[in-house]
Amino acid sequence: MAEGRLTRRGLLAGGVAAGVTALGRPASAAAGDATGEAGEPVVPFHGPRQAGIATEPQAHAVFVAFDLREDTGREGLGRMMRVLTDDARRLTQGRPALADTEPELASPPARLTVTFGFGPGLYAKAKIRSPIKPLPAFTIDKLEKRWSGGDLLVQICADDPLTVAHTLRMIVKDARSFATVRWTQRGFRRAAGTQPAGQTQRNVMGQLDGTANPVPGTPAFDLAVWRPDGATTLVVRRIKAEMETWDAADVVAKEFTIGRRLSTGAPLTGAREQDPPDFDAPGPNGFPIISEYAHIRRAHVGDPSLRILRRVYNYDEGITRQGHADSGLVFASYQADIQRQFVPIQRQLAEADLLNEWTTPIGSAVFAIPKGCGPEGWIGQEVLS
Amino acid sequence: MAEGRLTRRGLLAGGVAAGVTALGRPASAAAGDATGEAGEPVVPFHGPRQAGIATEPQAHAVFVAFDLREDTGREGLGRMMRVLTDDARRLTQGRPALADTEPELASPPARLTVTFGFGPGLYAKAKIRSPIKPLPAFTIDKLEKRWSGGDLLVQICADDPLTVAHTLRMIVKDARSFATVRWTQRGFRRAAGTQPAGQTQRNVMGQLDGTANPVPGTPAFDLAVWRPDGATTLVVRRIKAEMETWDAADVVAKEFTIGRRLSTGAPLTGAREQDPPDFDAPGPNGFPIISEYAHIRRAHVGDPSLRILRRVYNYDEGITRQGHADSGLVFASYQADIQRQFVPIQRQLAEADLLNEWTTPIGSAVFAIPKGCGPEGWIGQEVLS
Ligand code: HEM
Ligand code: HEM
Repeated sequence: MAEGRLTRRGLLAGGVAAGVTALGRPASAAAGDATGEAGEPVVPFHGPRQAGIATEPQAHAVFVAFDLREDTGREGLGRMMRVLTDDARRLTQGRPALADTEPELASPPARLTVTFGFGPGLYAKAKIRSPIKPLPAFTIDKLEKRWSGGDLLVQICADDPLTVAHTLRMIVKDARSFATVRWTQRGFRRAAGTQPAGQTQRNVMGQLDGTANPVPGTPAFDLAVWRPDGATTLVVRRIKAEMETWDAADVVAKEFTIGRRLSTGAPLTGAREQDPPDFDAPGPNGFPIISEYAHIRRAHVGDPSLRILRRVYNYDEGITRQGHADSGLVFASYQADIQRQFVPIQRQLAEADLLNEWTTPIGSAVFAIPKGCGPEGWIGQEVLS
Repeated sequence: MAEGRLTRRGLLAGGVAAGVTALGRPASAAAGDATGEAGEPVVPFHGPRQAGIATEPQAHAVFVAFDLREDTGREGLGRMMRVLTDDARRLTQGRPALADTEPELASPPARLTVTFGFGPGLYAKAKIRSPIKPLPAFTIDKLEKRWSGGDLLVQICADDPLTVAHTLRMIVKDARSFATVRWTQRGFRRAAGTQPAGQTQRNVMGQLDGTANPVPGTPAFDLAVWRPDGATTLVVRRIKAEMETWDAADVVAKEFTIGRRLSTGAPLTGAREQDPPDFDAPGPNGFPIISEYAHIRRAHVGDPSLRILRRVYNYDEGITRQGHADSGLVFASYQADIQRQFVPIQRQLAEADLLNEWTTPIGSAVFAIPKGCGPEGWIGQEVLS
């Protein structure tokens, strides 16, 4: 049977016993800080910025997008966001939602975060100028309506899948009088505790994914992700991985495609994962070792204010009769400004990225992420009231 | 960031350091015993009985059922089972499958188990008398073909969802020349480490589920589950939970339906979860406190040799536009003899169980589970060679 998970904080606070008692005590004093350290069950909800962004990614996520009902205007939206904020405030702290139909499932919260985003349609319905606009079309896109768009987004993440299921249920119930569900996308990463602290996760294609991400708590992170007021933006792309043909490629081709080694995640010009790639280093044939069309070269930007935060999840759904997987990434990218940061990178990739041979964007949506709120406030208050 | 999970064995073996080093070292000396303690990453594959049955349930499962190709006779089946056994033998120990297309994903195994079952159709195709037969029809059944039947079953369980996805992929690839995928069913339970050791899990309906299960390592367990040769049988029922109407019921009705409290899982006649229910105790109105139609009365059998092992998972898939969940249980029941143990209980429930108002069986399949094998053997060897 599982024993309590040992947390760094628990260890510092007095060794084993303290670590173990933190387990399953959602309202305990051992709450995580704003970045929500894995192993600590509670991520604070209140703050100048919404949780679930700088938070160390939890193992499970569901992204749910809603279409607002035609008659939901600015005032209705305000009512809805008051209710949903209240749900999030309670559930993330391990307390049942008001009128929770399965209050027993509210604890433990398992680092639950609930993050709200507003799509362009929400602003239109509220008759407010939208701070974001849809992405331009990219040549690689094969977008399906069932994975695209949406007026309201809720990103629900936790280290426990039952916590995610229960939270989704409560949020959807309370959104129902204002909105219908447009799509849900579920994703997963390595379970908490499965791999050592700080280790980059692998995605369904087998790659170490997240190496060159901005690091929470650094000025470069804040510059890339946050607007001065604590708001940000989110792009959710559903990217199908063509696993059959990817599997047919050999290791050399796979590594050439990304520009990094599969085993260690090191750039082809280096030895360790965190070695900076040397994009100029020439290979024996005179061409650069990291191809002009390698994913990490195409996606790389030097200016820290132009980078993006990839908070990606894997998906793996049904399997066809022939045994072909329906797998890929729920690619979630946070950045202060979509047009300035995300669009140029995505354009570079769409133009010529070797990885395009094995990946296809089948869904796409953009959301403004309002700033966080305090105990008396609600998410979106500054926009909707 | 996550710190290493602390295991009981680690603690006993010398405290924190030992516990932490067990993490992510799949081939380490700290392998779990046959029941596979949570927190220890490796469950042995070889043994007189297949793993994944007495194993403490892992957090994630996928059940995949195959239809054998018409031309797959006994000899082809033998070849298939040799290959699949080899995959299971390697992957459960954290080693890549032969010709693994994503060998990086083979570790950590996260208590991976791979359990094989043979449906009646497999025996027919191999021209061998089947030790099992399909279930009789029950009045409550609303079975859909897409969740029912199958010649070959593989139950893949691990504490990590990426490990499950990768293992499924390798198994399906290697089964492909012999079989097509009939259905896959994914399920989850509380993540490892989310709740304290030995605590009964809650299902999507909010109930403590598993209280009255036979306990691995006891004679009663062995009597209920294992045949003398190490074989057993499996019934997989997909049971939809009508969450909308269940949510509309109040706590008293919900507790009356099961015969146990939602909060503690105690029988309505007791105070603690493990108190034995008193089925004769009369209430103030003269009727028994635990209703004649309560789930635990209808499902209860006194004779230990007639009990079943419920190794159930939750499912929670898409959500309709109207916000209705598609949720329920992947109800997996292990028992030595389906006709003698499972069928009478299911019949009792089908006849009159208050829970039927909120649950509907939409899938059903039965499998013989061959005994385990040693390092030189393969699963099904005694049946197919
Ligand atoms: C299925 C689709 C994708 C896969 C499998 C994938 C995989 C990877 C991998 C393995 C790396 C190298 C390790 C790392 O730094 O994380 C990487 C880097 C990166 N990717 Fe992707 N990626 C995908 C799509 C995208 C998309 C759609 C974008 C943005 C529009 C993107 C932007 C980046 C960026 C900015 C980097 C870091 C580049 C650097 O500065 O070194 N990726 N990706
Ligand atoms: C969605 C469907 C079902 C739900 C939600 C459910 C839930 C429960 C709950 C909450 C308990 C009490 C706690 C425990 O001992 O685990 C229980 C007990 C039990 N259930 Fe179910 N159950 C379901 C279907 C079934 C089915 C299909 C069978 C067998 C055909 C079954 C057989 C049993 C047995 C044998 C017990 C223990 C009775 C005793 O001896 O106390 N259940 N179930």
